[in-house]
Amino acid sequence: MEHMNLIKSLSLKSDSKIVLIVMDGVGDLPDENGNSPLKIAKTPNLDNLSKKSALGLTHPISIGVTPGSGPSHVALFGYDPLAYDIGRGVLEALGIDLELTKNDLPARANFATIENGIITDRRAGRIPTEKNVEICKKLSENIKKIDDVEIIIRPGKEHRFVVVFRGEGLNGPLNDADPQQTGLKPVPVTPAKDDGKKAAVIANKFIEMVNQVLEKDKPANTCLLRGMTKVPNIPSMSDIFNLNPAAIATYPMYRGLARLVGMNVLKTGDTIESEFQTLKENWKTFDFFYLHVKKTDSYGEDGNKDGKIHIIEETDQFIPNLLELKPDVIAITSDHSTPWSLQGHSWHPNPFLLYSKHERWTGSSEFNETACQTGALGQFYSKDAMPLMLASALKLKKFGA
Amino acid sequence: MEHMNLIKSLSLKSDSKIVLIVMDGVGDLPDENGNSPLKIAKTPNLDNLSKKSALGLTHPISIGVTPGSGPSHVALFGYDPLAYDIGRGVLEALGIDLELTKNDLPARANFATIENGIITDRRAGRIPTEKNVEICKKLSENIKKIDDVEIIIRPGKEHRFVVVFRGEGLNGPLNDADPQQTGLKPVPVTPAKDDGKKAAVIANKFIEMVNQVLEKDKPANTCLLRGMTKVPNIPSMSDIFNLNPAAIATYPMYRGLARLVGMNVLKTGDTIESEFQTLKENWKTFDFFYLHVKKTDSYGEDGNKDGKIHIIEETDQFIPNLLELKPDVIAITSDHSTPWSLQGHSWHPNPFLLYSKHERWTGSSEFNETACQTGALGQFYSKDAMPLMLASALKLKKFGA
Repeated sequence: MEHMNLIKSLSLKSDSKIVLIVMDGVGDLPDENGNSPLKIAKTPNLDNLSKKSALGLTHPISIGVTPGSGPSHVALFGYDPLAYDIGRGVLEALGIDLELTKNDLPARANFATIENGIITDRRAGRIPTEKNVEICKKLSENIKKIDDVEIIIRPGKEHRFVVVFRGEGLNGPLNDADPQQTGLKPVPVTPAKDDGKKAAVIANKFIEMVNQVLEKDKPANTCLLRGMTKVPNIPSMSDIFNLNPAAIATYPMYRGLARLVGMNVLKTGDTIESEFQTLKENWKTFDFFYLHVKKTDSYGEDGNKDGKIHIIEETDQFIPNLLELKPDVIAITSDHSTPWSLQGHSWHPNPFLLYSKHERWTGSSEFNETACQTGALGQFYSKDAMPLMLASALKLKKFGA
Repeated sequence: MEHMNLIKSLSLKSDSKIVLIVMDGVGDLPDENGNSPLKIAKTPNLDNLSKKSALGLTHPISIGVTPGSGPSHVALFGYDPLAYDIGRGVLEALGIDLELTKNDLPARANFATIENGIITDRRAGRIPTEKNVEICKKLSENIKKIDDVEIIIRPGKEHRFVVVFRGEGLNGPLNDADPQQTGLKPVPVTPAKDDGKKAAVIANKFIEMVNQVLEKDKPANTCLLRGMTKVPNIPSMSDIFNLNPAAIATYPMYRGLARLVGMNVLKTGDTIESEFQTLKENWKTFDFFYLHVKKTDSYGEDGNKDGKIHIIEETDQFIPNLLELKPDVIAITSDHSTPWSLQGHSWHPNPFLLYSKHERWTGSSEFNETACQTGALGQFYSKDAMPLMLASALKLKKFGA
């Protein structure tokens, strides 16, 4: 927190503009020929931009630590990812585009089957999503409030849904109300800390009411609640960094993460092209833009190397549109690596490109993991990327005399 | 402090000698051809030294943060720059060669004009320095002590002067006594913390006495006080690092910073040549030498690329003299970068050269930002430079068994 106060005390308002492009999970590993998707992809525009940029590698959390999307984004937005815990409930809520307030305690919930007081199916036979929508509607009609706490219920996919407890004095984290295996009794919600008693009482009352409303239903006749953590009280980017920031993302979770740090979330379409179009249309209004490209990560998770290469090439095509806007600073990176061979997030640091006329460009003719490892920026933590972008945009004043 | 205690517990007295040459602000940015002053300058001796040296880059404070000379030097001397605040008043006092004690609370002061209780000119019409000297003499004669606090008044340039409150129990920081704009009443001094009450009372009495002494003068008939922070209580380099250190600097501020960490400040001339001569003359007496070259920074601040190149070349000429003394360890670096294109300090890490027969030299044929970015030392914080120099001089014993 002290470090954030330092940056806050130095940050200046100015007209310069910063664009942060996150190609989710773009960092990768060499294939048998030593080539990563970034190396294989034909990216004439990124290559050209690299020539006048400083390159480096960023660690999202700590060396060797593989992050989820929550902490890796929080770090990239300039916050200590270990200080601001983004619970699973919060992420799940953001993922279905729920707008959360500071009074919210969201839970990641499952419909489950209970028979004679024993959980017999933790996923209620993976009911179809349409059935889930129907049940959530019924629950919403029957459970609007518990004591002074508002109850918000939203369906997810199959057996998954989200419940948000909204009210004063609700503190997390709460321990999961899930026996983790069948054949056991449901576990009541308990607070992880002393100040969580009220929230635990409400959550238990909620489960009881769900049981009553669904009493005659099958197979979904109860629910299990997990990941109950309060929305973290993150100071906004405008407060800390003196920015007027905007977010452009096609997936709800990333819009939600951006909203958590006080970004203005812009309406955009489903394609990378539409995201760059949105950037152009809103260029005059904001001084910081976060533009999120999702599918580099999705294809990485699928183990689809060619798909990942294709998304990199598609993104490359819009770099000239970006340059036409004449941003003062451009950063292009990933939140975490998602190597296609691992089919999941990884601990490998992210390629990081920083374009600004005030940086040590070294004429690198490509942007990839190997070029970044000998770049002017070295290896650093993702949370330092924001001070670096601000500095390059001349938005940080001198510390001390 | 914990880290400093670690280093303190490991430091050994030995005969080996370390020379730290600070070419102030030497780190720079590429010009349109990709060349920095260090790249352009003809430096056969530095190039030769690089061949047997380990290279790296240092961050003075934190990534992206541009430091003033105070914190950047404190860091290079091996101290946490965020733990020891060097106030503007302290720096100003050091800059006019005032020797400060641990009981001192210095203020950066302006002569100003007050009319009918309203500040009408915050700089008293930028009175000439000679007039300033005269007023300071008059004040010194009339205000020697306030309660048990000694008052030291010294002229600076134009309207600027320094006042030092010297006595027991004076704690800062105090809030600035400056309305920041004309047309307002003077602001009384207030303490920033509870223990600053005595100091605030003394400072306010001082202002009152200045007003009385200058009552019939014009335009300088009052003063504004700023940057009132106590001299930081820094443990000495001999205490922490077991060194007998000496400082060679042509500018008072750097001599003052060296004195703050307990260095012996050597008398020297105005030229780089005289500084190296002083080094030679005092070689036997000390085991650590800090030699400061100022004008690389001054020319950087002026936007004078050629001037900066010239100073680098001039410094290069004395490297053979240095080598003749057979130092065990030589470190050559800057406290911060001062790119000529930015005409000011910057956040870019400092080129760092470490010569010692116990380092991983890589045969680099030049010493500049680009060579340093792929050097054996990587990127590290300036405050770690001192442990590194000590280690290379075999002055740090093993930690643990």
